Amino acid sequence: MPPDSGWVNPLRDPLDRRLPRIAGPSGLVIFGVTGDLSRRKLMPAVYDLANRGLLPPGFSLVGFARREWQDQDFAEVVHQAVRDHARTPFREEVWRQLSEGMRFVQGDFGDDAAFEQLRSTVEDLDRAQGTGGNFAFYLSVPPKFFPEVVQQLKDHGLSDAPEGSWRRAVIEKPFGHDLASACDLNEIVHEVFAPDEVFRIDHYLGKETVQNILALRFANSLFEPIWNRSYVDHVQITMAEDIGIGGRAGYYDGIGAARDVIQNHLLQLLALTAMEEPAAFDAASLVTEKLKVFKAVKLPADLARSTVRAQYAAGWQGGEKVAGYLQEEGIAPDSRTDTYAAIKLEIDNRRWAGVPFYLRTGKRIGRRVTEIAVVFQRAPHSPFDSTATEELGQNALVIRVQPDEGVTVRFGSKVPGTSMELRDVTMDFAYGESFTESSPEAYERLILDVLLGDANLFPRTEEVEESWRILDPVEEFWDRSGKPAQYAAGTWGPAEADDMLARDGRSWRRP
Amino acid sequence: MPPDSGWVNPLRDPLDRRLPRIAGPSGLVIFGVTGDLSRRKLMPAVYDLANRGLLPPGFSLVGFARREWQDQDFAEVVHQAVRDHARTPFREEVWRQLSEGMRFVQGDFGDDAAFEQLRSTVEDLDRAQGTGGNFAFYLSVPPKFFPEVVQQLKDHGLSDAPEGSWRRAVIEKPFGHDLASACDLNEIVHEVFAPDEVFRIDHYLGKETVQNILALRFANSLFEPIWNRSYVDHVQITMAEDIGIGGRAGYYDGIGAARDVIQNHLLQLLALTAMEEPAAFDAASLVTEKLKVFKAVKLPADLARSTVRAQYAAGWQGGEKVAGYLQEEGIAPDSRTDTYAAIKLEIDNRRWAGVPFYLRTGKRIGRRVTEIAVVFQRAPHSPFDSTATEELGQNALVIRVQPDEGVTVRFGSKVPGTSMELRDVTMDFAYGESFTESSPEAYERLILDVLLGDANLFPRTEEVEESWRILDPVEEFWDRSGKPAQYAAGTWGPAEADDMLARDGRSWRRP
Repeated sequence: MPPDSGWVNPLRDPLDRRLPRIAGPSGLVIFGVTGDLSRRKLMPAVYDLANRGLLPPGFSLVGFARREWQDQDFAEVVHQAVRDHARTPFREEVWRQLSEGMRFVQGDFGDDAAFEQLRSTVEDLDRAQGTGGNFAFYLSVPPKFFPEVVQQLKDHGLSDAPEGSWRRAVIEKPFGHDLASACDLNEIVHEVFAPDEVFRIDHYLGKETVQNILALRFANSLFEPIWNRSYVDHVQITMAEDIGIGGRAGYYDGIGAARDVIQNHLLQLLALTAMEEPAAFDAASLVTEKLKVFKAVKLPADLARSTVRAQYAAGWQGGEKVAGYLQEEGIAPDSRTDTYAAIKLEIDNRRWAGVPFYLRTGKRIGRRVTEIAVVFQRAPHSPFDSTATEELGQNALVIRVQPDEGVTVRFGSKVPGTSMELRDVTMDFAYGESFTESSPEAYERLILDVLLGDANLFPRTEEVEESWRILDPVEEFWDRSGKPAQYAAGTWGPAEADDMLARDGRSWRRP
Repeated sequence: MPPDSGWVNPLRDPLDRRLPRIAGPSGLVIFGVTGDLSRRKLMPAVYDLANRGLLPPGFSLVGFARREWQDQDFAEVVHQAVRDHARTPFREEVWRQLSEGMRFVQGDFGDDAAFEQLRSTVEDLDRAQGTGGNFAFYLSVPPKFFPEVVQQLKDHGLSDAPEGSWRRAVIEKPFGHDLASACDLNEIVHEVFAPDEVFRIDHYLGKETVQNILALRFANSLFEPIWNRSYVDHVQITMAEDIGIGGRAGYYDGIGAARDVIQNHLLQLLALTAMEEPAAFDAASLVTEKLKVFKAVKLPADLARSTVRAQYAAGWQGGEKVAGYLQEEGIAPDSRTDTYAAIKLEIDNRRWAGVPFYLRTGKRIGRRVTEIAVVFQRAPHSPFDSTATEELGQNALVIRVQPDEGVTVRFGSKVPGTSMELRDVTMDFAYGESFTESSPEAYERLILDVLLGDANLFPRTEEVEESWRILDPVEEFWDRSGKPAQYAAGTWGPAEADDMLARDGRSWRRP
């Protein structure tokens, strides 16, 4: 660490700690509780919240699935999931208290009796555990079941909050597969739940680094003055995965990289990077600003030159030979689904006019990394001679979303020596090194927010629809185009994507 | 290191390295060659330059002193100094070639015969070593001898360069002890040497980090937009030493911290931090811009409230009890010499109006550190609530001159956790980690520059005079005031200095 302990603040009272945000009396009902997400993320997150003292004493967790389980079986499964995946240490007394509020309801989504049983379970918990009528329903199920589940919740009186309490619905992506289907889905959900009762999970928004974008921009004075078209040359937003589609062929094929990642994660990152300062740090103000960005986003006229889609071909990854997408199990040999997508967007407003935002995502890329790189213009003039500066790149501020969460600034420095030679160096802030606090999992944060009714980190109906409005023309263009380009697994995507930036005199980062 | 290998530049030819700057045929004459500076810095620097291939093959080194040495004795002394203090490894073949050009001239400064011998030595070297008549005279002697030495150089034809060659004078601080004495000294020197033949050593300007100030500011686009009164709250320039005056009582007493450090080092750092972009990176353009800063520097009207001087009292340093200044050997018990000085300055120009520059220096301070801290204003508005941000300090960019050379940026970040709490973190660039090249010693750089005639890093006559113009009223005010304040050795200076900043609602950094 550099020697920068900095200033002493004599006014700071060391006993005055932030009040933790603690959920009030409540319970969580999970549909699809036997699924992977539930076991790997949701159950451990609930335990971690309990362990951190952020859940109320009588907090209740209800599982709903077809499996023939008793409460005890369900508790066993949660126990194992916590043991395997919880972030915080296992403590018997926390577990004991938490398990007292665990119930299981057996049935399928069409089963009226099961929903009646769910209703009486919820009412029992209100009496036994003091949940106060406050329940969130987490739909960890494929979207085709959304209509049926919300309708059942309505029909059995579960969506109607008793006087003075609340009912909320939590839904996972995909929020449709285009604008029309998203509008249909929203309509169905909103017939049962009011807009402020619906929490759409984009787990990226729960990540510390993503939340830090706004802190970085608006709690500091250093960055905002240069965060605009006068100083920024372009922005690159990247989410690269090293894995292939794994066992998700059924979900992935026909959806593809752009729908799976750009429509939600990358457009949300774009909105947080580009938005104006919100009037306050609350959900309404944030949505207002994000929507302004989405509405100002324009696709270039020539989509052939400003979008690229591709599929991974066979290649090497981590020292192993891996199959191409079309050879993956469950994928039709003539599939045109994109496993890589790159799109150039523009934001037609006063701050960003003329500054391209390049978004890219792909599977089977050389390295797993998500980052936002704000690349600045070159200095308008340099007093140094051109040989001194010929190795200099452009200044950049890179928000590293994952892994190695943090911020890197890239700038030119004099190379030690007796001549003036300049070279790029980096300055780094790493979450892991700067804080003793470890970062909560995104799902911990998001589940707590649902229980608190804090919607800051959840995309609203209009955001989802605006994102599809941006993406739809690209998907339609791709549908009319030929086959996707190819890239070898383990590389950084197709040559066509490099060409796309080269036409603009730029190049992709290789983070 | 963060994972930021960045962009690939396809245009870069890996064989095209910067041409090193190599001195042409030349020699260096050192007066006062038996002194500490010569042995610890100058001789090793000459060897290091030779070892790096930056000196011409016949480079010659002439020592001049009263000691009754032969050439061989002098070469032995240089040999030992190189063994003890050189930065680069000892190589016999480099040493053998270098030692062929070593000569010693015995005499005192009033000795005409010695100067005649120096003249013939120089002429011999031109023939034997091919030095081409090019000689620099390094006056590593107390300033009271300057007039005599330069007069002798003139009288014996040594200051007159033969056709097509050059003669240069190198002088060490102090350049006078006030404006009048500096003008006198300049007049004497310039009767013999033209302004562009005089090289004043401020060894701070030879440091990599100091040269990097201009690289940082003007080769990048990130910093300059916020480098002005619209964004900067104030600037702190600190040079803290942990040592006392050691055996330098005779030199130090009556001079003090402000004359010893602020007049030269700190005002030069101020000029580099505050100056406008020079039209080109050459000596004339740099002087032009530095002089503009010095001429715009104003002392506040009330010197009692904007300056502090103090003496260290007994205290603890590095686990040892150390004596106060007035108890040091050779210091009069009623001395009023400052061992700590802090001064607030303003720069009356469009860029800096209203932004105070706080300069401080001291001996027996808690830690040895030199840094420039540009402290930014708070964000004009924060969307976060006040409890979230109450621990936030101000953003700052800190140029660490020594030790741990580098740059630190201090800014606010979200603390990991489920609430929005912000805390200061730092982002760091360290020379030592970013470059495999090791930094040359300041004297290496500066001696090479003298031989090349490159005056970029040497304060000119007018700069020295302007610095005294700034400092003189402070010294006069202190002469009329009472005793200096006191501070315990090993602390960060007197309470009066803290009060001085507290009156402005600010506080000193504790780096």
